[in-house]
Amino acid sequence: MPPAAATRPAPSDLAFVPFVSVDNMMRLVNAIGVEPFLRELAAYIHADFLRWPEFDKTPRVASHSRDGVIELMPAADARHYGFKYVNGHPKNMREGYQTVTAFGVLSSVANGYPVLLSEMTLLTALRTAATSALAAQFLAPRDADVMAMIGNGAQCEFQALAFRAINGVNRLRLYDIDPNATAKAVRNLTAQGFDVVHCLSAEAAVEGAQIITTCTADKQYATILTDNMVGSGVHLNAIGGDCPGKTELHRDILLRSDIFVEYPPQTRIEGELQQLPKDHPVTELWSVMAGTAKGRRDGKQITLFDSVGFAIEDFSALRFVRDMLETHPHFDRLDLLADPDDPRDLFGMLIRAR
Amino acid sequence: MPPAAATRPAPSDLAFVPFVSVDNMMRLVNAIGVEPFLRELAAYIHADFLRWPEFDKTPRVASHSRDGVIELMPAADARHYGFKYVNGHPKNMREGYQTVTAFGVLSSVANGYPVLLSEMTLLTALRTAATSALAAQFLAPRDADVMAMIGNGAQCEFQALAFRAINGVNRLRLYDIDPNATAKAVRNLTAQGFDVVHCLSAEAAVEGAQIITTCTADKQYATILTDNMVGSGVHLNAIGGDCPGKTELHRDILLRSDIFVEYPPQTRIEGELQQLPKDHPVTELWSVMAGTAKGRRDGKQITLFDSVGFAIEDFSALRFVRDMLETHPHFDRLDLLADPDDPRDLFGMLIRAR
Repeated sequence: MPPAAATRPAPSDLAFVPFVSVDNMMRLVNAIGVEPFLRELAAYIHADFLRWPEFDKTPRVASHSRDGVIELMPAADARHYGFKYVNGHPKNMREGYQTVTAFGVLSSVANGYPVLLSEMTLLTALRTAATSALAAQFLAPRDADVMAMIGNGAQCEFQALAFRAINGVNRLRLYDIDPNATAKAVRNLTAQGFDVVHCLSAEAAVEGAQIITTCTADKQYATILTDNMVGSGVHLNAIGGDCPGKTELHRDILLRSDIFVEYPPQTRIEGELQQLPKDHPVTELWSVMAGTAKGRRDGKQITLFDSVGFAIEDFSALRFVRDMLETHPHFDRLDLLADPDDPRDLFGMLIRAR
Repeated sequence: MPPAAATRPAPSDLAFVPFVSVDNMMRLVNAIGVEPFLRELAAYIHADFLRWPEFDKTPRVASHSRDGVIELMPAADARHYGFKYVNGHPKNMREGYQTVTAFGVLSSVANGYPVLLSEMTLLTALRTAATSALAAQFLAPRDADVMAMIGNGAQCEFQALAFRAINGVNRLRLYDIDPNATAKAVRNLTAQGFDVVHCLSAEAAVEGAQIITTCTADKQYATILTDNMVGSGVHLNAIGGDCPGKTELHRDILLRSDIFVEYPPQTRIEGELQQLPKDHPVTELWSVMAGTAKGRRDGKQITLFDSVGFAIEDFSALRFVRDMLETHPHFDRLDLLADPDDPRDLFGMLIRAR
């Protein structure tokens, strides 16, 4: 018989998983500073892209419904396994909810135990921006200092800060079909010291920009940019075309561009690339970083980063957050794992808890 | 400019997700009672199996490593999306860790927001047992009252309680290669009022049993049961063969049995069925429940439930727990979701939190 337990046994250390709430993520980011956070995060993503072949990779697992999509995005190396849960519901914004919310987990491959549970709504916004700015280091014109941003929703300010922190871009030209969204972004970014122009059309926004970021949310085949709006030498950072049936660029732009992608099997389903034949040539971003493929060749080339977001970026972000918690302990301890004294005696643990 | 926030704004209700820790899961199960919990849970699983064609289904997404596997198991209907994270590391037990740990999330399909985060180590043990006992209702001999249980690890007692709660089985014959595991299970199950025999071999355990449950953990092609150990009329409840390269039954037993499975695309990869050709006939358990396929036909037939565990069972379990929380509020509220006042102003929320 088990010993009579007068008091409820406390779970052991093995039972607890560090948990970063939204509140603690904000504390962590603010403690480090948004721009330093983005720079450091980009360095983690860069390091993981450089060892791309080491990862266990799969296109994300999507469950589509009428109003949106819910996805699981796993990736693993020999030491860690990570995944993110993320939804995308464009109609949410009109009902007072986030279009995208996310959380994720990092685990030990050796025993399968989670080592971190984290909010990832904020972290996804940060890693998406860090990845865009990192890609632009290899693809944008060297002297780029003006960026057009079409779509001024939740992702907009993070993109701007990442491009300043990583590429030195300080001049922004903003446009959104909803002027309130642009006004919000102008207000936030002016307060951050950017030189910001509130534009009244997408055509006006792209004038004089060497980098064009498109980041709109509607789930449809949209044409945010038409062919005549994209001059030679421009770098296109296309964020919003990230799901089947959701694109932002006119097909003719793609045909004039050199296209760079994260993980081709996923981008061909979800990215701007879904508009082109399955064998259209693309370059994997990691191979540009590794030096085995060319990034920008000359000043006339149009480069397109057809970004859909890949699981390795989330893996890098979780790894980064976990490392940061060592010096910035902004986390709670969550009783997520059953940990009986005898691992085979799960039932006994339940009975003794009575 | 945003209003100067002297005090940190409290997250709104939208930001919080009900969280059932291990401790709260134990409170919930003990408040309801283990056997009533198993009976009610089986009713939820039954209800979901009856509407099987309504579900968005996929084989689980597995990441295999030398020592184990980490899996994501999603399933969705028109209202809810659920997934489970689960690992399987047979060597863990020797190092003081659980072989299997799990947690899961239930979300609203309409907006993608999680409505429940729950521990699922205990819940998986309960749903696996409930599913086995539910299957046996349709497959086991009607008068079965003796069950052999080979493998007496963490799952053993839950199986026994489910077979008593749902099928009236009260006599157990236990065997494990580790006599300490059998001693633990005998102690726990005797205390629960079972008539238990501690057997010294698998051959001894199966004597006179109308139901044989195999539930061992080693990741290998094992032969827990040889052909001569399985007489006519027996129902086999094979739980432990649940991953590529991990089986428990001799192939000849499969050839003499009518095989019932959860989701064929997954069972052919992971179950005992991996030993047979890809086109070997099987019957889907849900269709037996729905009355469109036969379960047990006669007293001589050997029925085999080749159980690997399917995502819909976890979906049912999460749905059940969420419903139970309404009358048994054993949960915490977790600040998992970012919820800015203006959903487009995620950055403003971060800045105002300074």
